[in-house]
Amino acid sequence: MCQRSSEMKALVKEGGGGDNRLQHKLLASVFYEASTRTSCSFQAAMHRLGGRVVHVDASPSTGNSSSKKGESLEDTIQCMECYSDVLVLRHPVQGSLARVISRVNKPVLNAGDGIGEHPTQALLDLYTIADELGGLSQIKQQSTSENPLTVVLVGDLKHGRTVHSLAKLLARSGVVNDPSTQLTLVYCSPPLLQMPQDVQDYVAQFGITQTEIPSLADAVAKANILYVTRVQKERFDLEEDYNQVKGMYIVNQELMRMAPSNMIVMHPLPRVDEIAVEVDDDSRAAYFRQMENGMYVRMAILDLVLSSKDK
Amino acid sequence: MCQRSSEMKALVKEGGGGDNRLQHKLLASVFYEASTRTSCSFQAAMHRLGGRVVHVDASPSTGNSSSKKGESLEDTIQCMECYSDVLVLRHPVQGSLARVISRVNKPVLNAGDGIGEHPTQALLDLYTIADELGGLSQIKQQSTSENPLTVVLVGDLKHGRTVHSLAKLLARSGVVNDPSTQLTLVYCSPPLLQMPQDVQDYVAQFGITQTEIPSLADAVAKANILYVTRVQKERFDLEEDYNQVKGMYIVNQELMRMAPSNMIVMHPLPRVDEIAVEVDDDSRAAYFRQMENGMYVRMAILDLVLSSKDK
Amino acid sequence: MCQRSSEMKALVKEGGGGDNRLQHKLLASVFYEASTRTSCSFQAAMHRLGGRVVHVDASPSTGNSSSKKGESLEDTIQCMECYSDVLVLRHPVQGSLARVISRVNKPVLNAGDGIGEHPTQALLDLYTIADELGGLSQIKQQSTSENPLTVVLVGDLKHGRTVHSLAKLLARSGVVNDPSTQLTLVYCSPPLLQMPQDVQDYVAQFGITQTEIPSLADAVAKANILYVTRVQKERFDLEEDYNQVKGMYIVNQELMRMAPSNMIVMHPLPRVDEIAVEVDDDSRAAYFRQMENGMYVRMAILDLVLSSKDK
Repeated sequence: MCQRSSEMKALVKEGGGGDNRLQHKLLASVFYEASTRTSCSFQAAMHRLGGRVVHVDASPSTGNSSSKKGESLEDTIQCMECYSDVLVLRHPVQGSLARVISRVNKPVLNAGDGIGEHPTQALLDLYTIADELGGLSQIKQQSTSENPLTVVLVGDLKHGRTVHSLAKLLARSGVVNDPSTQLTLVYCSPPLLQMPQDVQDYVAQFGITQTEIPSLADAVAKANILYVTRVQKERFDLEEDYNQVKGMYIVNQELMRMAPSNMIVMHPLPRVDEIAVEVDDDSRAAYFRQMENGMYVRMAILDLVLSSKDK
Repeated sequence: MCQRSSEMKALVKEGGGGDNRLQHKLLASVFYEASTRTSCSFQAAMHRLGGRVVHVDASPSTGNSSSKKGESLEDTIQCMECYSDVLVLRHPVQGSLARVISRVNKPVLNAGDGIGEHPTQALLDLYTIADELGGLSQIKQQSTSENPLTVVLVGDLKHGRTVHSLAKLLARSGVVNDPSTQLTLVYCSPPLLQMPQDVQDYVAQFGITQTEIPSLADAVAKANILYVTRVQKERFDLEEDYNQVKGMYIVNQELMRMAPSNMIVMHPLPRVDEIAVEVDDDSRAAYFRQMENGMYVRMAILDLVLSSKDK
Repeated sequence: MCQRSSEMKALVKEGGGGDNRLQHKLLASVFYEASTRTSCSFQAAMHRLGGRVVHVDASPSTGNSSSKKGESLEDTIQCMECYSDVLVLRHPVQGSLARVISRVNKPVLNAGDGIGEHPTQALLDLYTIADELGGLSQIKQQSTSENPLTVVLVGDLKHGRTVHSLAKLLARSGVVNDPSTQLTLVYCSPPLLQMPQDVQDYVAQFGITQTEIPSLADAVAKANILYVTRVQKERFDLEEDYNQVKGMYIVNQELMRMAPSNMIVMHPLPRVDEIAVEVDDDSRAAYFRQMENGMYVRMAILDLVLSSKDK
């Protein structure tokens, strides 16, 4: 997938922006909740490969779909299946994709189902790590037992679907699909928002070192990757609890001065104030490149799914 | 139209998904009320022939068009005409299309104008009947005066635009544009929701047999086509009237056991509970194929309208 | 730009509707407020040149973007930049574009920023004048000091962004980029809604004659161009002030009878009742042609911006 995503990046950056390999193929994109980024990058990915898109905004507040007439999710998706070659589904309820795929014969890509999964986000995060650190073989050579690849996950680790998926995928894939790569996961969060035990147990199976470092300044000292997520006020029952941690997990220039020169900063976006805008000009700020990678990864997935179908 | 629609089906299913015959042509799709299915199938149809689409959601609740600034329907459509080669209009008020076409020089396709017409729906219904019954010549041979083609229309026959149009089109076309085809229309509805007299009078002109069979079980016994529509609670002034008929017009496995093995079940969709989900796996359930045909019929229409323009 | 726009018009009208010169290029269209016309004509322009479009409705009332999650305008636009080759931005707040372009490397086209600018509207107005009056050289020959090109701006000249931009652009460009063209601007408005002094001062720099003629009938007598905008009730503090002028700035058949036979009527649209529908059939009514020109001008701009990037 990383190899294929790199090819897509080269196609867009040096190959004139795209090609026509998915000509006459149609993507039906059905979003039951808003996600500009995910939706737009899937659409852009399809367009860059010459395919076409029909987008349905099916969110209850702004959308316009037949779900308002009482139609079931399964029926709506089966309708869209009739017109298309591949589907993308975003739904606020965990397990929605599982419900749907039993009734659909065409490939359905999961663009997030509530607190369930968001697999293309995890893949683009993984690809970004590989891409930023100079390629997969590079990472393998650099990471030794004295000097493991250190990934710091910071912010709300309790509720963040993104960090759960990334931790699991990093553990399972060993970044390079090679268990000889040495990996350390560092969890940096307020006490109330720690990484759930089930994720930690899953990661532990693969023999990955996991440590908790509550102080962000301490955590970044040896980081290769700083993966930032937002601490949201609404997660706290007591305002005093929030006020106590507010500002402790902010990435700014001052923090960046303490960080290694080859560390990269990632964020699934959108951000609010957890990364100061002043950091954007730091070459280590990888979050916009990360987002761009989202398009390349989704191009790779669409190509894989639709090209293999023809063979 | 049926021939052309079959060609489109072959193009999508066996011809790689589409072609470029409408390259550089632009469809302006303007919807003053939501209709995911109609909108998406028109968009998909245009895309599959290589054309492009600009879609305007002009519905008062969720839309974003200039009609909110007090612009007339005629002006909005004339604007979109300036940018496009063909237009699709959906509007809740009967007669809207008629108002518009007098001021527009480019072809405008009616995607439903309130209780008025929804001609592409009627065409896709007719095409589905022909396609499912094995082609037009097949139908003609099978239908004899002892054994006429029997179409059962079930549910709310009073308000259903779809069943009105289908009854008229079936009568007029004799399915096969051949009056020797023998056709019987069976109306199966609650007493309060019977087929209007004016539709019955229209059909009668063509010498078509029309019968009323209130019981669904009785009606399906000799059916070739079972066309299902929804009985909506809001059509009844008294809740007790609704409760009395509720459940009497539900198609489920039990009913399907009583139906002929070569009968097909159609529905304009979306459905709520008038066809049980368990019926979906029955090969006689044709409603999703019917919906897919909507795309082929609309491809045929767009091709007809735009290709003929060039000649 | 006029030359290029004319080429685009010929491409659409006589060249089969478009070509593929922007194949594999992607336009991200981000609208923070509704503008069907501007949005659709940019989309259509991109499609007609073979490019692709991802549209984001980011308006607070109906939109679905991450700005609801607290994301800054700059971040949203930088995200869309990652996926696209060119951006179009519409925002209700003046100066939004200026804020954004400092952080974006790809071209961003201004589709209106509040009371700030709407440059493509001004360009299409200018192109329409040139096109309607028979080409640029034609205008130059016709306009002499005894017989200057007379442009009457009518309606709400105080708040109209469109008339401000047009007055300035006409003054600066001399229509034909040739100061020998003689130009007179006539302002026709209620006393409370006169052309602001700063616009008049700007125009005066170029030696353009400016006159105020409160009566519309008087103003049209020698007009070559009648540019109409709407007088809105909500601009008046006192209803009696509105009632006094209401109806004084309406263009109807009666007025058209008093106007020169070669005068053209323009309007940025949408209109409400400031131009009577009966005028539409008059060949001097140029406002729908003007709107169509919007697509040609935007095609020219997109081509200029994206083709030059390749070289």
